[in-house]
Amino acid sequence: MDQPYTLYYAPGTASLAVHWMLVEANLPFQAIPVDLAAGAQHTATYRQLNPTGRVPTLVIDGEARSESAALLMLLAERHPDRALMPAVNAPDRALWLEMMIYLANTLLPAMRDWFYADTDGLADGAAAVRDLARRRIESAWDQLNARLQASDHAMQDQYLVGTTLTTVDFLAVMLMRWARDMPHPATSWPYLEVYVQRLTKLSSFQEVCRREGLTGWPRVQ
Amino acid sequence: MDQPYTLYYAPGTASLAVHWMLVEANLPFQAIPVDLAAGAQHTATYRQLNPTGRVPTLVIDGEARSESAALLMLLAERHPDRALMPAVNAPDRALWLEMMIYLANTLLPAMRDWFYADTDGLADGAAAVRDLARRRIESAWDQLNARLQASDHAMQDQYLVGTTLTTVDFLAVMLMRWARDMPHPATSWPYLEVYVQRLTKLSSFQEVCRREGLTGWPRVQ
Repeated sequence: MDQPYTLYYAPGTASLAVHWMLVEANLPFQAIPVDLAAGAQHTATYRQLNPTGRVPTLVIDGEARSESAALLMLLAERHPDRALMPAVNAPDRALWLEMMIYLANTLLPAMRDWFYADTDGLADGAAAVRDLARRRIESAWDQLNARLQASDHAMQDQYLVGTTLTTVDFLAVMLMRWARDMPHPATSWPYLEVYVQRLTKLSSFQEVCRREGLTGWPRVQ
Repeated sequence: MDQPYTLYYAPGTASLAVHWMLVEANLPFQAIPVDLAAGAQHTATYRQLNPTGRVPTLVIDGEARSESAALLMLLAERHPDRALMPAVNAPDRALWLEMMIYLANTLLPAMRDWFYADTDGLADGAAAVRDLARRRIESAWDQLNARLQASDHAMQDQYLVGTTLTTVDFLAVMLMRWARDMPHPATSWPYLEVYVQRLTKLSSFQEVCRREGLTGWPRVQ
């Protein structure tokens, strides 16, 4: 058995997708909360693990690694028996890579803009940055909704890649949760609403929410 | 032998990294130019291949796929003998995934903002969006420069991951080329300047520039 993973996380942040995956895959790990409100991410100790001062950090075989989308892919390939990605050369492999990158380079940065425009940039430019972020986020929901709508599977059996749960779903549901208080939450799109209601009923999602103290999303249908 | 790849590209755009990799790896492919100035990316024929109307599109086994970072990763794993990524479970594998995602979710979207702020968003917000993009791009050059500076390898033998050329280098050099006319080009950072000068001397880079008609970067030392 490999040594357990150590996840540094903060409730509801980008660490949620990784935390959820660790629970779903039943991997051995310890979870260490990072108190963002108290500035724990800026301490020298944490910066040594993660120079950008963000969460998550995942310590793997003694090495600290970051970038949530990369961590999901890494865990998936380290544990192929969990089948949380299409195998190399499987028919859905190209789509899986494309979707991981699409979420990482479209929704993740737009969400960063939406939430941090005024701290990452100048305060008086924040409204413009947020406006563009909102357009991009809504356009991404359009695309994901259309993808589910066009898929061959019944509405009650949909994942974003193929017919089983993959890392794309962990990332996508986390991003949809982040949009819950936006003018048009992801769940305003009909296929995304059904998808969110179903995925969030997974016992692993409920368990990670319990551990992180997250409540109230999605609203009960 | 698999059937050849078909790459839809426009000179100097996000297709450049994939085009470069196809040349470097000596893979069988045909390259089809998409005339962006003439709006060829908006034709029904092209939109059927790529609904977002962007380049690159790579047709693989008859299926059209997109997202340059994903295509690089896909080609690397379909051709493991080319050794353009660390193998699964190799020591540098986690760093490779992290760097691919880092470039995809930090520099790629910030470059999009830098070049397309006024067409993707409202014209009167473009200056604010560009200002934040520039901060993020320069901060990324800081980080990449520091990474090269801290590496154990001699300055004349550096790659961004490990000691050999990987997909990260195709993506990074393309992004550095995009910044060539910015207030602080990537080559203003000393380790990045050496890196760019060396990587762009590869015969595969010179060949892809010849095929795409790209000249004038980097300036001769």
